[in-house]
Amino acid sequence: MTRIEADYLIETPVDPSAAAEAMAGEQSSGTFVRLPGETEELRERSSARVEGLVQLPNADAPSLPGARGAGPDGIRRAKVTLSWPLETTGPDLINLTATVAGNLFELQQFSGLRLLDIRLPDAFSHYPGPKFGIDGTRKLSGVATGPLIGTIVKPSVGLSAEDTAALAGTLAAAGIDFIKDDELQADGPNCPFDTRVRAVMDVLKAHADKTGKKVMYAFNLSGEVDDMRRRHDLVRDLGGTCVMASLNSVGLAGMLALARHTDLPIHAHRNGWGYLSRHPALGWDFTAWSKIWRLAGADHMHVNGLRNKFSEADDSVITSARSLGQPMFEGKPCIAMPVFSSGQSAVQPPETYARLGHADCIYAAGGGIMAHPHGPAAGVQSLRDAWDAAIAGIPAQTYGETHPALAAALETYA
Amino acid sequence: MTRIEADYLIETPVDPSAAAEAMAGEQSSGTFVRLPGETEELRERSSARVEGLVQLPNADAPSLPGARGAGPDGIRRAKVTLSWPLETTGPDLINLTATVAGNLFELQQFSGLRLLDIRLPDAFSHYPGPKFGIDGTRKLSGVATGPLIGTIVKPSVGLSAEDTAALAGTLAAAGIDFIKDDELQADGPNCPFDTRVRAVMDVLKAHADKTGKKVMYAFNLSGEVDDMRRRHDLVRDLGGTCVMASLNSVGLAGMLALARHTDLPIHAHRNGWGYLSRHPALGWDFTAWSKIWRLAGADHMHVNGLRNKFSEADDSVITSARSLGQPMFEGKPCIAMPVFSSGQSAVQPPETYARLGHADCIYAAGGGIMAHPHGPAAGVQSLRDAWDAAIAGIPAQTYGETHPALAAALETYA
Repeated sequence: MTRIEADYLIETPVDPSAAAEAMAGEQSSGTFVRLPGETEELRERSSARVEGLVQLPNADAPSLPGARGAGPDGIRRAKVTLSWPLETTGPDLINLTATVAGNLFELQQFSGLRLLDIRLPDAFSHYPGPKFGIDGTRKLSGVATGPLIGTIVKPSVGLSAEDTAALAGTLAAAGIDFIKDDELQADGPNCPFDTRVRAVMDVLKAHADKTGKKVMYAFNLSGEVDDMRRRHDLVRDLGGTCVMASLNSVGLAGMLALARHTDLPIHAHRNGWGYLSRHPALGWDFTAWSKIWRLAGADHMHVNGLRNKFSEADDSVITSARSLGQPMFEGKPCIAMPVFSSGQSAVQPPETYARLGHADCIYAAGGGIMAHPHGPAAGVQSLRDAWDAAIAGIPAQTYGETHPALAAALETYA
Repeated sequence: MTRIEADYLIETPVDPSAAAEAMAGEQSSGTFVRLPGETEELRERSSARVEGLVQLPNADAPSLPGARGAGPDGIRRAKVTLSWPLETTGPDLINLTATVAGNLFELQQFSGLRLLDIRLPDAFSHYPGPKFGIDGTRKLSGVATGPLIGTIVKPSVGLSAEDTAALAGTLAAAGIDFIKDDELQADGPNCPFDTRVRAVMDVLKAHADKTGKKVMYAFNLSGEVDDMRRRHDLVRDLGGTCVMASLNSVGLAGMLALARHTDLPIHAHRNGWGYLSRHPALGWDFTAWSKIWRLAGADHMHVNGLRNKFSEADDSVITSARSLGQPMFEGKPCIAMPVFSSGQSAVQPPETYARLGHADCIYAAGGGIMAHPHGPAAGVQSLRDAWDAAIAGIPAQTYGETHPALAAALETYA
């Protein structure tokens, strides 16, 4: 494969084929009018091509304002595949986005345009990709099978470094595998990054010395490039095993600078994802978007959770989570670990496991752990029980008969 | 002002006040349930606050799927202002985005949520901001008054470095002030960055030696941090006067790394803007978004143009362009220069000037220059004439009676 490919959902008042050709033109050698310099030879060498078009049922009304050229056939919808020659951009992930997701979304031919998926030539596989992924995360966390049971520091903000460390100690004692900072907490005056890392690592190292288990803590190091590198080094030097970056805050050049530097897994947070995706006829599908970040070095990626507290539907959550397991290149699959969170408890694991098809994930709960009627340790245990039962193919209720933490959780969170 | 403020348009099936409180909670110390650690003292110190709420007329139907909790009062709309204490995040531009534009857009309380504007405490003014802005750009380009008349290399892709340089020569001979690379052209095999810069600067320097006028060329250096810095140095060392970065491709940490390094104005390209903004009830208003990039160092920002070839309405274009002139801090206004483009010709300057209120802009045309019936030099002249007439308060038709390039343009592009 020597061309870059991208799939789009399009919605248009004009003929979808003509609209697709306009996309291809705008995103390569064409412009609104044919210019003298645009020779046949140049077009042959540089043009984007429409590789496929599948008609879909019409829309009832335009999804987005500003489309022009209403035809007699209503609001048409189609799935379109475009391709670009590698020679124009080269295998350049940063500039790829200007090509596959640049000035397309504003084209007046469309009342809806969404990037569904991308496929990249092997030449792109020179990027770091996940350095740790599933295997590396399992090694560092000591969790050989099943999900890493995780949680998020809450309250998100307002805790001091010492408060955070005390909470980490409580969670470690409860048997947690993974803790992450909230994305709202990076390096503010009330809880400075360095102080927090030192305080938390003191507690987690003491716990590891006592129990042999080092809880993985994803410290939110989002910031400027030099700061991220320095913060990463501090975490590593203090024995930490994970760093977290907010992808939409840091951006792709920053992420690549971090990924090329890191000796630890990158826990990739997608906050802001809603503005990229929530309208179904605009923006990005997670499958396309996450491929860019996987190739850039994301080891863990957030995918929300079943019956979550946000607006995302369950099917979308599962599609996202499964997409992280689709290999990107033959020699470099770039598999990232899905992170489930938001309103999760011992209730959702059977369906999550059945629909995900594996247990190579981080499964994070807040209230599902801290609000367990028998305390946080029972909360963690109930999540482990729920996954054990799911993996063994035993109904949760049945398993609960011999596993009291699970039984109590099912009663509490049902 | 010691709190961060942000204005939002919200659309919600529930009471807007309750929805706004949910936003404030989610984006600070709260979560879906009140947790034991969330003490009154912690809330007092760390909570976001609802500072204002103005009811707007109801929507007919939900703009976005996934909202829950339909009440008896239909789909409510409001403008809401939230504030956050500076102490939580500190004056940290990168992590600010996770606070003002993070997990808000997915909240199930909303069927629409758009970030309209932000206001930052003076503590944020430590960031670079535009190093050149209007005055610096005028000095480097030698254009003391009126707009810089600009254009974009077209065809966007497919030209070799030598082809690009030849085109730059034609445009310089035509009297152009400003040329930019297309955002699709960065450092691909068919037109490598370094080769292009060398070829173009040879031509532009020869032109400057002959005429005393050095055309400003914005070379698209978008890429990884070290590459951008190296490319910037090459441009500077060869006598170039501008670099261009695709903001959504590079991201904020990359932009800051570039801005802290640069000795040249940064021409900030917003390609991808459509996915952030095109649905009126989702994403970002330009006013909010551009403030982040202005503070990060953008000297020039694209704003589309009146009667453009995209889907954006004229009012939106003017609002964007005017917003770049609103001071951000008393001691550091961070004024960026608006860049008009897309379907522009000698037709739009009178209205553009009248609605913008000044001529401190870059005014870029493609076909409006290259397709002028008397050739590119007349194309450039027609744009200058049109602006001169507008600034002097003379109707374009009248001015055209003594300015043939303008007269021909008005006939061609009307």
